[in-house]
Amino acid sequence: MNLILLFCKDFIGPGRVRLEGRRLHHVREVHHARAGDELYVGMADGLMGYGRILSVDDGRLEMDVTLERRPPAALPVTLIMALPRPKMLKRILVSVSAMGVKKIVLINSYRVEKSFWGTPLLLEENLRKQLILGLEQGRDTILPKVIIRKRFKPFVEDELPEIIKDTMPLVAHPGSRQRCPSRIDRPATLAVGPEGGFLPYEIEKFVTCGFSEVHLGERLLNVETAVPFILSRVV
Amino acid sequence: MNLILLFCKDFIGPGRVRLEGRRLHHVREVHHARAGDELYVGMADGLMGYGRILSVDDGRLEMDVTLERRPPAALPVTLIMALPRPKMLKRILVSVSAMGVKKIVLINSYRVEKSFWGTPLLLEENLRKQLILGLEQGRDTILPKVIIRKRFKPFVEDELPEIIKDTMPLVAHPGSRQRCPSRIDRPATLAVGPEGGFLPYEIEKFVTCGFSEVHLGERLLNVETAVPFILSRVV
Repeated sequence: MNLILLFCKDFIGPGRVRLEGRRLHHVREVHHARAGDELYVGMADGLMGYGRILSVDDGRLEMDVTLERRPPAALPVTLIMALPRPKMLKRILVSVSAMGVKKIVLINSYRVEKSFWGTPLLLEENLRKQLILGLEQGRDTILPKVIIRKRFKPFVEDELPEIIKDTMPLVAHPGSRQRCPSRIDRPATLAVGPEGGFLPYEIEKFVTCGFSEVHLGERLLNVETAVPFILSRVV
Repeated sequence: MNLILLFCKDFIGPGRVRLEGRRLHHVREVHHARAGDELYVGMADGLMGYGRILSVDDGRLEMDVTLERRPPAALPVTLIMALPRPKMLKRILVSVSAMGVKKIVLINSYRVEKSFWGTPLLLEENLRKQLILGLEQGRDTILPKVIIRKRFKPFVEDELPEIIKDTMPLVAHPGSRQRCPSRIDRPATLAVGPEGGFLPYEIEKFVTCGFSEVHLGERLLNVETAVPFILSRVV
């Protein structure tokens, strides 16, 4: 936790914050924080700054916070992912949030196992938990938006053209002729398939929509590795 | 498993292979493989090719294999990592092996918890298991070498100068002035710190040795995300 993300309910007075539960526990156990120490803090969807600890014990921490600077610029990337298996999704959400992606679309694909759609992780409050962990890791305050689209065709045909407007749309597909471009100079929309990849039919739909197929090298990466790999490459 | 890695003991005759156990199970359960099907195979530290299944049942699979082409070129990177917590190390080894890194050095650092050094994961046979999973994922045959150095100072002073020879040595350090260069045109040696980063003293030792400090952007990434992020950037 490189930043403590604060919410309105944490404020007990102007500039005065009280923490309990998970964040208190972390600050005590990992940071060994004591009265007088300063901690990085940030207001959810707002400014970042620091908090000076007034008191801390087993039950609560109180601090005065100063919020004074803007969070880092968003990564100019919309990430479209075939829904990964829940255990992997959980880590990917944290990692993508830490890297500064602000728009994530989870879609269906032929090779997404149907059971994945039943995971409680897709409930808004659970998604939010992972995204917060990512902001705390990356030191950012702006919560990413996660959009869930269980029907591939209507999403690609009806919504995707609007999403990719003014961006470079790329779909990662092993075996493509073109290598993923690096450091592109405008926003990107990146589509990453499931384990085993998108079907040829699905790739065709992306291409018809305006996407270029690109590969990430000769090797096949799992989604968890491919996502930071491609994000790092294009920005 | 995008490639089945074969070992001498799998051969029951010239070009004839028998599989049991984990690989058989995977081929049956995930690939639903049947007699006549072809599978990607590769000889550990040797050539890649395909296997044509002769017979398969609950207890064993037999196939004729043809090994005809070289594995992908190694990633021209030596990766030095402060030992991550075991659960994370396990996944990082798979991912780094899948990305094609062939030399990994696990080192100590002040912020590495002492208990991490006790993990059975560091036993040669367990390291090897993870590296094999990575090769099977990435479709490669060349087993990476993992070097373990529990003493920071002797490693940096006595061994590191030789390791970085003819490479660009970079140490990832949040808050550095210089952004990590992208697509460098020669081999790299990359050093990645523990959660919380290397100490200033440790960074200084790397710099004295010839490393440049570089950052990966304004955000702080955990090791698991930082590794594919930096690998993707420099190659």
